[in-house]
Amino acid sequence: MSDRAYQLFEEQQKERGIDLAQVKERLKALKVETPSWGYADQGTRFKTFQKVGVPRNTFEKLEDAAQVHKFTGVCPTVAVHIPWDKVSDYSALKAHAESLGIGIGAVNPNLFQDDDYMLGSVTNSNPAIRRKATEHLLECVEIARTVGSKDLSLWFADGTNYPGQADIRKRVVWMYECLKEMYDAMDDDMRMLIEYKFYEPAFYHTDLADWGMAFNMANKLGPKAEVLVDTGHHPMGTNIEHIVAYLLGEKKLGGFHFNSRKYGDDDLIVGSINPYELFLIFYQILDAERDADPGVAANAARIAYMIDQSHNIEEKIPAMIRSVLNVQTQLAKALLINFDELREAQERQDVLAAENAVRSAFECDVTPLLRAVREEMGVPADPMKAYLASGYAEKIAARGKGGASW
Amino acid sequence: MSDRAYQLFEEQQKERGIDLAQVKERLKALKVETPSWGYADQGTRFKTFQKVGVPRNTFEKLEDAAQVHKFTGVCPTVAVHIPWDKVSDYSALKAHAESLGIGIGAVNPNLFQDDDYMLGSVTNSNPAIRRKATEHLLECVEIARTVGSKDLSLWFADGTNYPGQADIRKRVVWMYECLKEMYDAMDDDMRMLIEYKFYEPAFYHTDLADWGMAFNMANKLGPKAEVLVDTGHHPMGTNIEHIVAYLLGEKKLGGFHFNSRKYGDDDLIVGSINPYELFLIFYQILDAERDADPGVAANAARIAYMIDQSHNIEEKIPAMIRSVLNVQTQLAKALLINFDELREAQERQDVLAAENAVRSAFECDVTPLLRAVREEMGVPADPMKAYLASGYAEKIAARGKGGASW
Amino acid sequence: MSDRAYQLFEEQQKERGIDLAQVKERLKALKVETPSWGYADQGTRFKTFQKVGVPRNTFEKLEDAAQVHKFTGVCPTVAVHIPWDKVSDYSALKAHAESLGIGIGAVNPNLFQDDDYMLGSVTNSNPAIRRKATEHLLECVEIARTVGSKDLSLWFADGTNYPGQADIRKRVVWMYECLKEMYDAMDDDMRMLIEYKFYEPAFYHTDLADWGMAFNMANKLGPKAEVLVDTGHHPMGTNIEHIVAYLLGEKKLGGFHFNSRKYGDDDLIVGSINPYELFLIFYQILDAERDADPGVAANAARIAYMIDQSHNIEEKIPAMIRSVLNVQTQLAKALLINFDELREAQERQDVLAAENAVRSAFECDVTPLLRAVREEMGVPADPMKAYLASGYAEKIAARGKGGASW
Amino acid sequence: MSDRAYQLFEEQQKERGIDLAQVKERLKALKVETPSWGYADQGTRFKTFQKVGVPRNTFEKLEDAAQVHKFTGVCPTVAVHIPWDKVSDYSALKAHAESLGIGIGAVNPNLFQDDDYMLGSVTNSNPAIRRKATEHLLECVEIARTVGSKDLSLWFADGTNYPGQADIRKRVVWMYECLKEMYDAMDDDMRMLIEYKFYEPAFYHTDLADWGMAFNMANKLGPKAEVLVDTGHHPMGTNIEHIVAYLLGEKKLGGFHFNSRKYGDDDLIVGSINPYELFLIFYQILDAERDADPGVAANAARIAYMIDQSHNIEEKIPAMIRSVLNVQTQLAKALLINFDELREAQERQDVLAAENAVRSAFECDVTPLLRAVREEMGVPADPMKAYLASGYAEKIAARGKGGASW
Repeated sequence: MSDRAYQLFEEQQKERGIDLAQVKERLKALKVETPSWGYADQGTRFKTFQKVGVPRNTFEKLEDAAQVHKFTGVCPTVAVHIPWDKVSDYSALKAHAESLGIGIGAVNPNLFQDDDYMLGSVTNSNPAIRRKATEHLLECVEIARTVGSKDLSLWFADGTNYPGQADIRKRVVWMYECLKEMYDAMDDDMRMLIEYKFYEPAFYHTDLADWGMAFNMANKLGPKAEVLVDTGHHPMGTNIEHIVAYLLGEKKLGGFHFNSRKYGDDDLIVGSINPYELFLIFYQILDAERDADPGVAANAARIAYMIDQSHNIEEKIPAMIRSVLNVQTQLAKALLINFDELREAQERQDVLAAENAVRSAFECDVTPLLRAVREEMGVPADPMKAYLASGYAEKIAARGKGGASW
Repeated sequence: MSDRAYQLFEEQQKERGIDLAQVKERLKALKVETPSWGYADQGTRFKTFQKVGVPRNTFEKLEDAAQVHKFTGVCPTVAVHIPWDKVSDYSALKAHAESLGIGIGAVNPNLFQDDDYMLGSVTNSNPAIRRKATEHLLECVEIARTVGSKDLSLWFADGTNYPGQADIRKRVVWMYECLKEMYDAMDDDMRMLIEYKFYEPAFYHTDLADWGMAFNMANKLGPKAEVLVDTGHHPMGTNIEHIVAYLLGEKKLGGFHFNSRKYGDDDLIVGSINPYELFLIFYQILDAERDADPGVAANAARIAYMIDQSHNIEEKIPAMIRSVLNVQTQLAKALLINFDELREAQERQDVLAAENAVRSAFECDVTPLLRAVREEMGVPADPMKAYLASGYAEKIAARGKGGASW
Repeated sequence: MSDRAYQLFEEQQKERGIDLAQVKERLKALKVETPSWGYADQGTRFKTFQKVGVPRNTFEKLEDAAQVHKFTGVCPTVAVHIPWDKVSDYSALKAHAESLGIGIGAVNPNLFQDDDYMLGSVTNSNPAIRRKATEHLLECVEIARTVGSKDLSLWFADGTNYPGQADIRKRVVWMYECLKEMYDAMDDDMRMLIEYKFYEPAFYHTDLADWGMAFNMANKLGPKAEVLVDTGHHPMGTNIEHIVAYLLGEKKLGGFHFNSRKYGDDDLIVGSINPYELFLIFYQILDAERDADPGVAANAARIAYMIDQSHNIEEKIPAMIRSVLNVQTQLAKALLINFDELREAQERQDVLAAENAVRSAFECDVTPLLRAVREEMGVPADPMKAYLASGYAEKIAARGKGGASW
Repeated sequence: MSDRAYQLFEEQQKERGIDLAQVKERLKALKVETPSWGYADQGTRFKTFQKVGVPRNTFEKLEDAAQVHKFTGVCPTVAVHIPWDKVSDYSALKAHAESLGIGIGAVNPNLFQDDDYMLGSVTNSNPAIRRKATEHLLECVEIARTVGSKDLSLWFADGTNYPGQADIRKRVVWMYECLKEMYDAMDDDMRMLIEYKFYEPAFYHTDLADWGMAFNMANKLGPKAEVLVDTGHHPMGTNIEHIVAYLLGEKKLGGFHFNSRKYGDDDLIVGSINPYELFLIFYQILDAERDADPGVAANAARIAYMIDQSHNIEEKIPAMIRSVLNVQTQLAKALLINFDELREAQERQDVLAAENAVRSAFECDVTPLLRAVREEMGVPADPMKAYLASGYAEKIAARGKGGASW
């Protein structure tokens, strides 16, 4: 049945004007980085529920991540968080990853889990604490160099809880000074990905509260700095794909932290709450890949796709596989947009036809396509089913409860 | 200067048509319950910063709470949370409180910090877990009886994180069954205060998501059940004072969990982010106290005022004193509304005059009034200053770091 | 190709455990009421753009609505709004509708476009205005009787713009008194559908602000009163399908006003902004249709599905056809949920499997199914294409610009 | 009594370390521009209620605005909107204003009330429409020159209602091209104030959706371009004072459109819904006035304060007076912040003391101060009372109903 399904799908798409060979090539080029902390126990401020089989250290986290890559074929790297993933020998960590067929991806400094950072790290009014924070940033550059990573992914919990608590404008300057020092220490081929967040854990103001503040900081720092969009870090109602398109037009979109939210920064499985939004993000990216301006197209091509989620109640590895599949599914659907048809509708200002050109691609069932692509890539046609049947979950159950938190 | 200030204030209010004797009487009648957990270390999912001097057990929490009462004169009771405040001998706990000049207030069951409750407590599809949850509710009724408390304050973290995860309608029925059993076990003069929350820790749906669901539950249970409004548990933009007025009209407003928020459930010091909102809540309450329907007036008179906050970065006891003072301040301002003038403006449909009757009371400086009231109550005119000068903070510093979490 | 597509679809669904015969039957039972005002010129407070071919009166609105029914087969009735659709002879209106193969649906009183209603209609502090409003409600009951409609659909713009402007609690009582009079005048087989709205045009408080207030009103009035859910009338982040499920559990869900929103009450084409949300609403409805409690199942079966949109920039008739198709599409997808599989996953508390049972149905392409159903119903397989080719748009262009507003 | 009140106020502020002479000087320097359209009939999309006495043309609007200036002393200019205020002879308009003791302020082009602009003005894919829009912008520069205005205030309704409707990135470029042409036509001492808006009337994406997009545009255009903050144009929960502080740090804050909102862009009387927010905005401005960087201080000093509201149900002139008084009141309160004390508390990281330094200024009653300032300025101590007693309302009642809309 699946052969007939693919054949029919191919005919249908041909009729829609879609070249499946190109679609498949683009799908195979997708790389989604998974985060080491996504395999660990996580929770809310109310409770972290401990799961059986959670990795007890970074080496085991990499082993679990390697499973996700094994079954999906699109997750060759793993982001690390320092000090959650602090080890005495980073070369050994790198070698371990390579032995598993994967690599270390973005290095994430942690500037929010030390008593010193209670009132800010790079924006703390105490210069000694800013120094300490800067040293940690520099340490992470060095770690990146050691593990062969090119991306430094920066999220700051810095902000205030009350009006008057701190000098908002000075904190902007202090942050710039710290980041400038880090920026200057980075190799020319490294990237600084600057994340922003609307709120939490700061509850009155966040020093980098929105894309505009992250973008302005990246502009001031220089070409190695770009903006990182975490899909859960916006005010309610925000049109995220608009921000994505805008940053692409400015050639400053560094990457994504994918996850889903219905309310705040819920960190649910990407694509599980509003799949159309994820599709529309990919529509903007694919549109930029076709831009006449080579700088815009180049930006679209170098985006770092990363997952950043908190699986509080789900089984860790299946939750990660589901996340990766959801990303792949929405990219596949977006690839079925007939951009010529869309452009024509836009040009004749036919609102309904233009909307239809986009939505109708979303309504296609891409199962036959993804099965075919996976077969060509040499991975299981149904990665989730294959993983569940693999016995890995039973094997890691021996780790028991009480694995790593974060 | 302060005598002259009060004299002038009295003249001004007389001119505005306000009878200060009544105002003072009402102010003295205010009781604000503080929560035992508000004295403990608290944090976000990202980090709990440990403070020096945090109480190490419930007995020490009561001692700190007694300080707040000593300096403000309006906090004679302390809410407890089981099992955070579980002790082997609740009579001893009661006696300890009484020796400190305070009493035990609302008893709060905890149905969210046990691995069994990961997918729900009273709404769990597993009947054994619902049984366990119900037993805990019954245990709390018994504890309330022992400590002499009349209020049982219920917040449920129950809900789901994903579409399809559970049967929403069945969970409503299950919750009712558990609460009914608790309700029937309660003495006739006990109150069940049912809290609702828009989201968190559940991220797709919360079983009691809004006042309407809590209200409907309370209606089905009977007269001993009422709704508890936590000021931080609403969607953005919600007019909380409208809900307060509505519940008063229905004679079903049980009480408040006071705190402030700018974004989500930030649990900041009440009155620190939007003081006018707190004032407007008191305006609705005072208006209901004057209602021709004695049932409405009686409801307004029996409201339980409780603080529920998470002092992540603040000094605990001063933060609590500040909270209590903010509540007192906004009640004092609301008492300066000339309700006759307001009613007349409303009746002649003069929008601007009616708005002015309310806002102009808010703009009064109630410092002279509060100083006078405090003197008459025999507590310091400036409770914060008096506490800071008392040496208590220095004394409890000996507790060191690492006190109770929650 | 389309025969092979349907055959394959049938095989795939059989494998998924879906009985297509039942699915088709349920799809054929769908009725979606379109609103007369959806064919007229509409706009924002900033501007109403006039379109060519807009109907100049209610008779022409019915003619356009009949086209939507002709091409989709699922829109046999049209909601009317009084006085927008006021005519001297309602029997003639009814006869005109019938001559077009359609009927008059819900009657909507209008209590917001008269200078008298500036500060409220049924909640106005002036009893003469409340009387006027009540008379209009009674007039609408009479009109419903004349045109053979059983549904009275009530939305109130009533509310205030400023704190203190009016007495919130009294307004609740006044509204009840007016509605009670209308309720008593209604025939036993008529339904009062009570709509709520978070805000706009009132900007401080809305008398019926949420489902809880509408539900409580309906409960007090009696069995003929039910709640109407307008999908655009909620605070940001609200889980609408939760409210739908909850109201079904209470047997008080009267109907829907369908539309889409990204921000406020945007009144865009239903299913165009977040199609998954519409699908999840239908999931809850179909789940309730299977409820063991016959009252719940009966409620699910009698829901009134109505469109309420404001096509500011779109072509009117195509926008309405697109809306109807979107509703049909999401119902079709929801019908592909394997409820047995879902129930089993829920019972064994397998979060990811339960979520997958729901989402995987959404990912199916229902085009072959809908084409087949339409063929069996005797309407075009592609209603939009057929309408665009029909020449009707060209014909009504003769109406010119300057048609009815609302 | 009012003399004694001022004397006591002076003593109290002296004790708080506040120099009232400076405070009064700063208060006298405040200028608040009122909008011509704020005197006209306005409404929501549902209804514009017509008021008696509304000005029938721009000359009468200026007369009403002159009354506001007469009674408050702080509103010497009036913003105009073209074509709402289009006249054949702008010199005559200027002369009329001057004869009334006021002047013409910011010129506001209107690019949203012409059928051509339905799908965009400066971002329309049709170059002829962009040309038309640009010509209007150039016309407004010319009008500004004629009436002696230095500020051009730009708000664009441009955006889309549906995914796919238009090319988001191209629209950014098109807007830049149009604004660049206008920018180049402006005199060196003119300012372009670029407003942004989260949504409405566009409902899927707004071309200038947030401060970041307006700021980036202003940066690209050059020093004559700055950002205009409309307090009602943000997502829910946004910390507006943070944006204000940030823009001041970047020396790019051009001005304000003041109004209040509880939900969307409600356009209520400024300071009526959340007065503390307005106070906190002024706190950031006054803080910037004290900045060591002269560029920041200069930016704070040149901010254009403008009111932009929609008085749908209020009496027009009293609503405007109330708005101006609210602005004045919150500035007065912010001037009572002891910035030295605040700085010290911030430097020793005393969160509660810093918060207190800000909030306690807000709690002061500034009535005695404002009365004194007004007396010194030669305007009535109670402007509202004086206006209501003046007989002007009775006089303009002769205009009848049916005045200007907008």
